[in-house]
Parts: sequence; structure tokens; C-alpha cells
Amino acid sequence: MSGFNVRSVLVTGANRGIGLEIVKQILGKSNPPEWVFATCRDPEGAQELKNLASTHPNLVIVVLEVTDPASIKAAAARVEEHLKGSGLNLLINNAAVLKLNTLEFETPEDMSLLYATNVTGTLLVSQAFLLLLKKAAQECPQKEMSCCKAALVNMSSEAGSIQNVLIWNMGQFISYRCSKAALNMLTKCQSLVYGDYGILCIAVHPGWVQTDMGISISPEAPLTVDASVQGILNMLPSLSEKDNGAFVNWEGKVVPW
Amino acid sequence: MSGFNVRSVLVTGANRGIGLEIVKQILGKSNPPEWVFATCRDPEGAQELKNLASTHPNLVIVVLEVTDPASIKAAAARVEEHLKGSGLNLLINNAAVLKLNTLEFETPEDMSLLYATNVTGTLLVSQAFLLLLKKAAQECPQKEMSCCKAALVNMSSEAGSIQNVLIWNMGQFISYRCSKAALNMLTKCQSLVYGDYGILCIAVHPGWVQTDMGISISPEAPLTVDASVQGILNMLPSLSEKDNGAFVNWEGKVVPW
Repeated sequence: MSGFNVRSVLVTGANRGIGLEIVKQILGKSNPPEWVFATCRDPEGAQELKNLASTHPNLVIVVLEVTDPASIKAAAARVEEHLKGSGLNLLINNAAVLKLNTLEFETPEDMSLLYATNVTGTLLVSQAFLLLLKKAAQECPQKEMSCCKAALVNMSSEAGSIQNVLIWNMGQFISYRCSKAALNMLTKCQSLVYGDYGILCIAVHPGWVQTDMGISISPEAPLTVDASVQGILNMLPSLSEKDNGAFVNWEGKVVPW
Repeated sequence: MSGFNVRSVLVTGANRGIGLEIVKQILGKSNPPEWVFATCRDPEGAQELKNLASTHPNLVIVVLEVTDPASIKAAAARVEEHLKGSGLNLLINNAAVLKLNTLEFETPEDMSLLYATNVTGTLLVSQAFLLLLKKAAQECPQKEMSCCKAALVNMSSEAGSIQNVLIWNMGQFISYRCSKAALNMLTKCQSLVYGDYGILCIAVHPGWVQTDMGISISPEAPLTVDASVQGILNMLPSLSEKDNGAFVNWEGKVVPW
């Protein structure tokens, strides 16, 4: 297991919650990446990211709306420009939405919105940044797959584990659970295709975290954002080829599908 | 294990493939249901159903477009009228679409279409027929859950098993796999909610069958429609409370999520 040693990272949905904390902790490392791309729908309103950027010249805030293919393409072009010919090591698909509907009152509108954001958004962002991830994989002298070489990390949830249906007693939120189960399938498919290019693909359950989203389910959310992200950033460098296509939690434990 | 002894059945997507064969085999039983509701988008064009209806007065063809909430509600009202105060024992959510896209060329349009049809359609149809399923569960003198009492059967696919990603070597069809993984989650959620009303909920993998859909993947599809549906109709009556929320194939074997 090597340390977190990544030249370039991109995090979607980085204006708050887990995404913002990942950016903060990565920037605070003793060996921060050369480039940290933090994307969000509305950079103007992302005050915390703007504050960070004012003291971290390696942080680039990029507008990216994951349900808008044109926005995704424009973001990929901007990132490519910054990277000046080198690849992107780590793509963290973190942007996601939650609705707290029950089975009885679940709606086609929310089913569609959550799928478009949490699943199709991840698909499209990954497609758009694939060339940069491939480039990173080719550039890297290490043969073994790793998050430091080239990796796609999809932020999933154990709420989307069909086996465990985590915190069912706290809420049914059908559209969210269905979207995360589908995201896990997408991650598995990506691992089977992108694995051949040397890109490690994994789905991560960050825990039930004290973010706006986590607290909207219940204020009993047990895990601090800090602890969740520390766990994730400690765990990621330990992953290798054998983990390609896996579903792991913030501590690296395998979560059943 | 009791035989197939059901007073009323509804099958969506019944104009061809597995849906049509289910209707045919159910009507051909020595003890056919009092009512068989066969739904499809375009009853006018459903010649085989119309032929069957001409010799089977217990077959009712109902127009139902699973992506149209108004159409679903109208269908439920029509079925309720026919049932004259009694419940619906068995709802088979069979309507589904497939697109053969690869990961590289998967599109937001097809992601959205397949989710709306295969997942949200199943959600909405189940919501609309819930009262009739509840009624069937209340009417039935048996305490134990069964497909003869009240059941929701969602036609899924082992192609949507995240563990197995069946016939990956035959095609990636990402939108289909993601939709079926999400459908499995929906089935699990339905089992947790509807189980309390005495309604058995299961996801069924019918096999890789020689339907138009199965053959569009490859002409090597190994299972005849006849054999798949015979298996399903033999297997369904053997299911009980312990199977609520399960994912089983046409032979009753559990499929991993």
C-alpha cells in the first residue's frame, strides 16, 4: 500500500458535503496533487471552493452540470487545457441528489431526475473524461492498477445495496435506492471495459454521513464528513487490480450488491 | 407446493414474447383463471391476443402504456370494473425494452427510455394495481403468502445481476443492465412494503429466451419461449413467504444480486 500520490484529481459535486471535504483534505496533504479540479453546477455560489482557490493555485473550479452533455464536454475541454497534454489520474463521480419519497408516493419525475443525475450523469462524465484517464494510465510507469495511476471512483451508497437496503427503517427513498443499485451495475460494467485500459473502477459507500443529504434522512447520521473522507482517502491508495469492479465502504470493507 | 390455481392474472407487454406465451399457457391450463388481463400498448395490432380472445371469453385485452400514468390509471379502472369487487391475485410486470448499446456509445436518451419503461413503469403499474392486490390478499382464506393469494412478479434478467453480468461477452447493453439492477432493487423495496399486506413480491429471470428480444442479442439464445414459460408457471406456485423479495430464475434457482 502506497500513500495518496496523485498528480491530478477531479471531483464532481464539489461545492459541499463529501465532495467539498475530499477537495479540502486532498489540498491539505503534504504532497498535494499538481491539479485538483472541483466541479459544481454554480461556481459563483460555491463560496468555500472560492476561498480555497484563493490560497491554493492548484485548485481549479470548473462549471459542470452532470445532466447536461454540453456542459460535461465543455468541462472536459477545460480540464484538458489545464493538463497540457498529461492525463487525469483520478475521477471521483460524487455529484448526486436524494429525494425522500416513500414507495406509495414515489413519482416518475423524481425517478427520472435521480437516475439522470446519479447514474446517467456518472456515465456521461466518465465517457467525457475517458481519454484523459487512458492517458494517465499510459503515462504511469507502474504496471499494477491503482488510484494513483488511473481510477474512476463512483460515490455510491449502501442504501443501494439490494442485499442490505441500509437504513430502510429511516426511510424508503425508492428513487435513490434504485439509482444507486443501477450505479453499482454501471461501475461493474465500467470495470469490465475500462479495466482493459488500466483504469481501476470502484463504487464507494462513504457511510451515513453528517452532510446536508445525510442529515435530511435523519439527524442521527453517525459519521462526520471528516471521518468519512479520511477513511476514503486512506483506503483508495490500498486498492489494486483485484479490487477492480468492487463495492467498498469508506473503510475498504466490501459491501454486498 | 400447490398447482397454479389463480382466479385473476394481469400480464403487461402481453402482445408478444414471454408475455404472450404466459397468457397462452395460462389460458390452456385445465383450471384457467376466471380473468386473464393481457395488456399492451396497441391492442389493435395484437393479432395473436385477438385470436386468443375470440375463443377465450375469460381473456380481456386492455390498452396500457407503462410510461404513461394516465394510461395506467385507465387500465386499472377497467380491470377493477371487470373484477366486480374482487381482487387481482397475480400481477406480472413483463413489459420491457432493450437497446444494444456499448458503454462507449450509450446515450442519455436510451438510459432514460429504458429506465422509464423497465423500472418506473413497473413502479407505477404496481402502485395503480395495489388496491386490487391488497383486496385479493384479504379475500384469500390461506394465511401463507403465495402467488395464488396475491403476488407481484417483476420480469427481471440475470443480465441485471451485478454479480454475474450474464452474457457480457454477447453485448454490453449498459442501459438494459442498469435498468434491471434497479428493477431488482425496486422489487426488494416492494417486498418490504407490500409484504406487510400479504403480497408476495419477486423478481424473475426468465432465461435467455428465443424471443425477438433474446434473438436480437444473438441467435444463439438457448431457451425456447415455451420452456421458459413452462418453467416459470411451474415454479411460481412453489413460492412462499420465505421467497418474498427474492430473485429467482425460471427454474426457481436463486440468482445473486
